[in-house]
Amino acid sequence: MSGYFCVMYNKISHADLFDFVHSVFRAIGCPEQDAATATHALVSADLRGIDSHGVARLSGYVRLWEAGRVNAKPHIRIIHETPSTAVVDGDSGLGLVVAPFAMQVAIDKAKLVGTGWVSVQHSNHFGIAAHHAMMALPHAMIGMAMTNASALVAPTFSTERLLGTNPICVAVPAGEQPPFVADLATTTAANGKLEILQRKNQEAPLGWIQDAEGNPTTDAHALRDGGALLPLGGDREHGSHKGYALGAIVDIFSGVLSGANFGPWVPPFPAFVPMPENQPGKGLGHFLGAMRVDAFRPEEAFLKDMDLWISRFRSAATIDGHDRVIIPGDPEREMQAERMIHGVPLLPVVWDDLRKTGEKFGIKF
Amino acid sequence: MSGYFCVMYNKISHADLFDFVHSVFRAIGCPEQDAATATHALVSADLRGIDSHGVARLSGYVRLWEAGRVNAKPHIRIIHETPSTAVVDGDSGLGLVVAPFAMQVAIDKAKLVGTGWVSVQHSNHFGIAAHHAMMALPHAMIGMAMTNASALVAPTFSTERLLGTNPICVAVPAGEQPPFVADLATTTAANGKLEILQRKNQEAPLGWIQDAEGNPTTDAHALRDGGALLPLGGDREHGSHKGYALGAIVDIFSGVLSGANFGPWVPPFPAFVPMPENQPGKGLGHFLGAMRVDAFRPEEAFLKDMDLWISRFRSAATIDGHDRVIIPGDPEREMQAERMIHGVPLLPVVWDDLRKTGEKFGIKF
Repeated sequence: MSGYFCVMYNKISHADLFDFVHSVFRAIGCPEQDAATATHALVSADLRGIDSHGVARLSGYVRLWEAGRVNAKPHIRIIHETPSTAVVDGDSGLGLVVAPFAMQVAIDKAKLVGTGWVSVQHSNHFGIAAHHAMMALPHAMIGMAMTNASALVAPTFSTERLLGTNPICVAVPAGEQPPFVADLATTTAANGKLEILQRKNQEAPLGWIQDAEGNPTTDAHALRDGGALLPLGGDREHGSHKGYALGAIVDIFSGVLSGANFGPWVPPFPAFVPMPENQPGKGLGHFLGAMRVDAFRPEEAFLKDMDLWISRFRSAATIDGHDRVIIPGDPEREMQAERMIHGVPLLPVVWDDLRKTGEKFGIKF
Repeated sequence: MSGYFCVMYNKISHADLFDFVHSVFRAIGCPEQDAATATHALVSADLRGIDSHGVARLSGYVRLWEAGRVNAKPHIRIIHETPSTAVVDGDSGLGLVVAPFAMQVAIDKAKLVGTGWVSVQHSNHFGIAAHHAMMALPHAMIGMAMTNASALVAPTFSTERLLGTNPICVAVPAGEQPPFVADLATTTAANGKLEILQRKNQEAPLGWIQDAEGNPTTDAHALRDGGALLPLGGDREHGSHKGYALGAIVDIFSGVLSGANFGPWVPPFPAFVPMPENQPGKGLGHFLGAMRVDAFRPEEAFLKDMDLWISRFRSAATIDGHDRVIIPGDPEREMQAERMIHGVPLLPVVWDDLRKTGEKFGIKF
């Protein structure tokens, strides 16, 4: 029974987790509405099973605020726009607040002219892309979200870290089927997966990372020693130049198009890491999009065909040892259903971190 | 000197190649303007070094016309639109003609409302995505092009071919630097590269293909025996679920959003392959997009930052044995400059194929 108790010990209901995180965001000075928006975004990562991007990062956000890099009371505003586009200045606010604001602008524009596209400057880490892209779904729109991030990834043939893990999310509504939600870092493996191997002192598969000289390595700690994550594809023979190109597209749409920083100049998440010198832009950047389905086809016809797409792929013949073909978004949705009922499991180290973060503000965890 | 003569024998000036291809498209009944548009699109692939998508496919297009699957005199038209979107019905025309029409619609909409997004149904193979996306560049716009294609790729964990190689191209203008042009199939390797190995009877790297049971294989002929191409990433541990998701996004934007076919129902390119049964849509689908740079930032500021992005990445430190970091689009641009001057090399088998195609219409090659 010890295993059972161990699991129970680390679980917390999502409602309790929400209340705690909300109190912390209120304590650093976020207005009520912003604190709720940020909490929804952050806890959605834990509910969907993306533990590396959820409350495990709460203390990191607080440290950014302590370092004066996050503005808890930002004046988020549109600084340029056309009927289908906008640039939003996040005023150094939490990306967890800035990105939903920008996504709402995209949705509002899509209502008027079919699509809306918003590039964001002067923001911070926005959590999981899926949370923002999925805001489009209740409006019968396709949602898109991407963000640049501080440089951990080497372009093909380079020893330098010039790109973040730069995720892309596309969320597509369906009819009777649950929505299609693809949310992917443009690297072979997300940094969170590498961190798990580091904690366990296990080796990483070849193709995830390179060492400081650019040689393939299985040393999960190679990043600490000047190595880099590898773009999706892993090596040139397996298409790493494509992963590099995808990460570059995210960087250009998020950083260059908005007037944020890009490439090696994107601000780091850890508050103790100094800011890069000679930054060309403001903060980090996101890119959000919304496309009204009925700007292309009658909604009903589209949803019917999406149902057919999803059911055909889900029922595809499988390789021996696998019981189904996964539709992007399936694992996260199933995880959320489970955790909404049974609670969110937290590693002891995260539990401790939350407790200490709460103590700073007299909030009990 | 024999090698030298051998190479000379197979070279043709791009002007002669253009004239020949144009005559063939005229001979199957394409109006003058359409024949020119299609020829530009097709020959651009040869000039850029994407030989698998250039004149090597001309006889294939002719056979589709002979089989009644390509309409040489299509009435291409917008069947639905909003200020920033449209659906174009290609009327079964050559994708080489339909896609430029749709891209022009996207550009025209971007002029008016900032961005334009066009999903296309009832089309055929459109050649290389880059040709269409790059139409946006002279207008100081970012161009995007994608297309679905007949199913050769198995989703992660499946033995079935359900997706095409479904390429994505994003073309971004720069100032003094040449533009950034990323054009990538969402598979580990393009089918054209596999065909080269097949001709030479060489093995393929693991991660490119699987056999009929879904096992990794180096047999370059495995596709013929019921195998499949693998999504970018190659296997689950290296992120093949991300390549699968990207291919799926292309399929949904091109096929489901337009009312074209999608997944396993996309029409095959070889005219002798029967059409899939129970097709849900019309022809194959594309998705084209254009974003005016100054719908986000002043054009000059954007171009200056793109120049900085490109020069920073191009001058990045390299791994021993590599002399530079490549900017997406560099190799194709350099190839085009070379071939514009020195001619387009054609394999003897392609040369013969063009000669025979010409003979059908009394056109000398």
